[in-house]
Amino acid sequence: MEDNNLSISKEITPQSENFSRWYLDTIRKADLMDYAPVRGCIVFKPEGFELWERIQAAMDKRFKETGHRNAYFPMLIPESFFQKEKEHVEGFSPELPWVTEVSGEKLEERLGLRPTSETVIGHMYSKWINSYRDLPVLINQWANAFRWEKRTVPFLRTSEFLWQEGHTAHVCEEEARQETMRMLEIYREVVESELAIPVWTGKKTPAERFAGAVDTYSIEAMMKDGKAVQAGTSHYLGDKFAKGFEIKFLDRDNQLKYVHTTSWGSSTRLIGAMVMVHGDDKGLALPPRISPTQVVMIPVGPQNKRAAVLAKTDEVFLSLKEAGLRVRTDLREETPGWKFNEWEMRGVPVRIEIGPRDVEKGQVVAARRDTGEKIFVPIGGAVVFIKGLLDEIQNNMYQKALAFRAEHSYTHIDTLAELKTHIAGAEQGDGIAGWVLAGWCGSDDCEKNIKEETGFTTRNIPFLPPVGKEICVCCGHKSEHTVWLSRSY
Amino acid sequence: MEDNNLSISKEITPQSENFSRWYLDTIRKADLMDYAPVRGCIVFKPEGFELWERIQAAMDKRFKETGHRNAYFPMLIPESFFQKEKEHVEGFSPELPWVTEVSGEKLEERLGLRPTSETVIGHMYSKWINSYRDLPVLINQWANAFRWEKRTVPFLRTSEFLWQEGHTAHVCEEEARQETMRMLEIYREVVESELAIPVWTGKKTPAERFAGAVDTYSIEAMMKDGKAVQAGTSHYLGDKFAKGFEIKFLDRDNQLKYVHTTSWGSSTRLIGAMVMVHGDDKGLALPPRISPTQVVMIPVGPQNKRAAVLAKTDEVFLSLKEAGLRVRTDLREETPGWKFNEWEMRGVPVRIEIGPRDVEKGQVVAARRDTGEKIFVPIGGAVVFIKGLLDEIQNNMYQKALAFRAEHSYTHIDTLAELKTHIAGAEQGDGIAGWVLAGWCGSDDCEKNIKEETGFTTRNIPFLPPVGKEICVCCGHKSEHTVWLSRSY
Repeated sequence: MEDNNLSISKEITPQSENFSRWYLDTIRKADLMDYAPVRGCIVFKPEGFELWERIQAAMDKRFKETGHRNAYFPMLIPESFFQKEKEHVEGFSPELPWVTEVSGEKLEERLGLRPTSETVIGHMYSKWINSYRDLPVLINQWANAFRWEKRTVPFLRTSEFLWQEGHTAHVCEEEARQETMRMLEIYREVVESELAIPVWTGKKTPAERFAGAVDTYSIEAMMKDGKAVQAGTSHYLGDKFAKGFEIKFLDRDNQLKYVHTTSWGSSTRLIGAMVMVHGDDKGLALPPRISPTQVVMIPVGPQNKRAAVLAKTDEVFLSLKEAGLRVRTDLREETPGWKFNEWEMRGVPVRIEIGPRDVEKGQVVAARRDTGEKIFVPIGGAVVFIKGLLDEIQNNMYQKALAFRAEHSYTHIDTLAELKTHIAGAEQGDGIAGWVLAGWCGSDDCEKNIKEETGFTTRNIPFLPPVGKEICVCCGHKSEHTVWLSRSY
Repeated sequence: MEDNNLSISKEITPQSENFSRWYLDTIRKADLMDYAPVRGCIVFKPEGFELWERIQAAMDKRFKETGHRNAYFPMLIPESFFQKEKEHVEGFSPELPWVTEVSGEKLEERLGLRPTSETVIGHMYSKWINSYRDLPVLINQWANAFRWEKRTVPFLRTSEFLWQEGHTAHVCEEEARQETMRMLEIYREVVESELAIPVWTGKKTPAERFAGAVDTYSIEAMMKDGKAVQAGTSHYLGDKFAKGFEIKFLDRDNQLKYVHTTSWGSSTRLIGAMVMVHGDDKGLALPPRISPTQVVMIPVGPQNKRAAVLAKTDEVFLSLKEAGLRVRTDLREETPGWKFNEWEMRGVPVRIEIGPRDVEKGQVVAARRDTGEKIFVPIGGAVVFIKGLLDEIQNNMYQKALAFRAEHSYTHIDTLAELKTHIAGAEQGDGIAGWVLAGWCGSDDCEKNIKEETGFTTRNIPFLPPVGKEICVCCGHKSEHTVWLSRSY
């Protein structure tokens, strides 16, 4: 089921030549997606969808361990619901597709395709929550969602996307804020430990907040072109939605109070982030914990010595499979060289080659996708060795991404002029302007000005900035916040 | 997070008084769902959604074991796509909601909310499939879908529902027909072994076929009111969609040929079926393999002897949990009697009571939801005993459902007059007309006539009918098919 569509490049464009082109080449050649017949929508092909299934499993497990349960709310949201939280409707209505008719009959009220579900869930919570005994409500939903944005990029920004959205309600601000942080920390932990992507956790500026939130926190990741991807967000919503939807409860003190709510989301854009953080000119590189195939076995050598090689391949395959590894054998007719390239392009972390001489010597050859290194492994110790190797690759991929981020993070820039010089320098060099840690006075004007002058936007105000900045990079007044600036997806 | 909405009956209406009312009372009191603010839509609350998650896991495992992979296709389908298969558009267009505008701007072409995805998937397959080497394509999708039907019943028939839809493409009819049967058999096996619901597998009549199918097969289950639920369908689509969407491949013989496709689906209506097959006047009764909670532990006895009871409860709880059982302890302040009723109503298969005398004697009391029986179990052997008991309950629930079906299946009816008499008799008796095995000449006229005269419709033509029928129940001519007739959801 290869995609033979002619619009795919024969070769993958090198990253240094055109990173966007490299990305589009890679995700199509690795068979992760295809364009759908509806504007801005994609098809998640099995190779791409399985990445999502593994991300889902990693997240879902942690959500459940922290007391959350899944539910499902209707996708269609009556127009009047959007009106109940003013900032929310302003934020989302430009991107809303509307159902206006059913089989020829006009609906009395238009129904929006959910861009996010605070409104309809708020409506339901107002029915379900009456007493402090009903709290906290800790619910998550896995669903499709719609945001009809002008510029779309496969996985990163599509008209329809898949995601999870958590929605919780609490007796007080403190508990709701704890929840907001707990979920941000789960995102950080999953993305760092499973996807091998280092992230900065921090607070969004007011201008970059979720529409209707009191505070928005995010995890932000650096792609190999130096741009940022917001990889997950967690919002403290205060009592804003509670007031919009009348979510009140009778507290222990017999007072009727508004609940405090949170919401938090992560989406299929994590697939795109994983591709852009780890991929290289050979194509995809997948972290072992997420890769659908962890080990691919390729028997090599002449036909007349094939039988012994295949028998040994089978033996090793079965021992790896029994050990719980996701392993497959490639027995197609193509040449070994073609297969090596193919599986490197598809990002499989470890390739095992077995030839007649390996059989004689009782060994296999393990090739690492991350370093290209080839290692001779005695067959008797193959299972233990490969398991350890996968852990090492997972860790190495994280460390490499961390080193790349460190190399492209700049903390010495104090003025707009320096920032412009830095960006101009990068454009004349490798094109990677990276991230700049800057002081910011906290004013919307300076934030806007930075964006207009440089194209850099505020990513987040990191909880633990590598250094503190004293003056605003824009106006030169006292800095209130140390903030990451960069281009972003 | 109880639903305190006043519209829920205080008590569950007895099944014999009003089965529909019993159903609605039960699913709301057991907290499975709530009504959504959009016509015909429901909210799947955590207790209900977890049933779906367990059904999903059981199905998904088997789909993957038989070589299928999951993918995701866009939910919005351009209007022109529906036109490409004539019967398909006629079948589905009366129920389609349409997106006609995005943020105030009218779309050039209306987009339908998927009622099923043969069209958009056919379009993609025509791009992906070129050679016999690309076949078979074995893809499944878990998704939401929309059918705006007039009469809705929670879970069984809702405007938006959750389901899986498998879509496969094959080199020839034989292979596609094998796939159709393989998936029907998976549905049968999951529904019988996991949901403890006996089903009849068989072929739908031409009038009851999926819109655009060559042949539709189904599994049909009998509810406790004698009505049928179609619990899963598998379709052989021939080359109809292949022709509509130009899905062609170059075969080994160098000829360009149309693929043969199948599709198969099962949905959240399985939740409704499970409720209506096993529930009773106490409320839900859940089969142990699907029940979110398999064992609930309730410590009883006076406050002054509480410490020892709680310690023992904890000990048993941990040993059951370690053994992999889904167990919880109810420590709320309510009386034991209230709790017993509550957990019976929620359908938990086994309740364990521990009181001071049980602690002294080194035992617990296990109460079965399916039979009401109470059993004294020595604490040392509790894990082994409870595991065995859950298996026994699972089997007993299946056997009970099988016996109920046998009691309400009638094979002695040969004419329309006899059928009417049978139905009239049931209406004056317990109201359960059940299923009638009838001969059918195969004509649409007789099928229509039976429906108009009796309200009974054809369910399916079972592969292994309990007896063969010689003459058509309607016209008296030679029977071509032995068919199940009943009322249905």
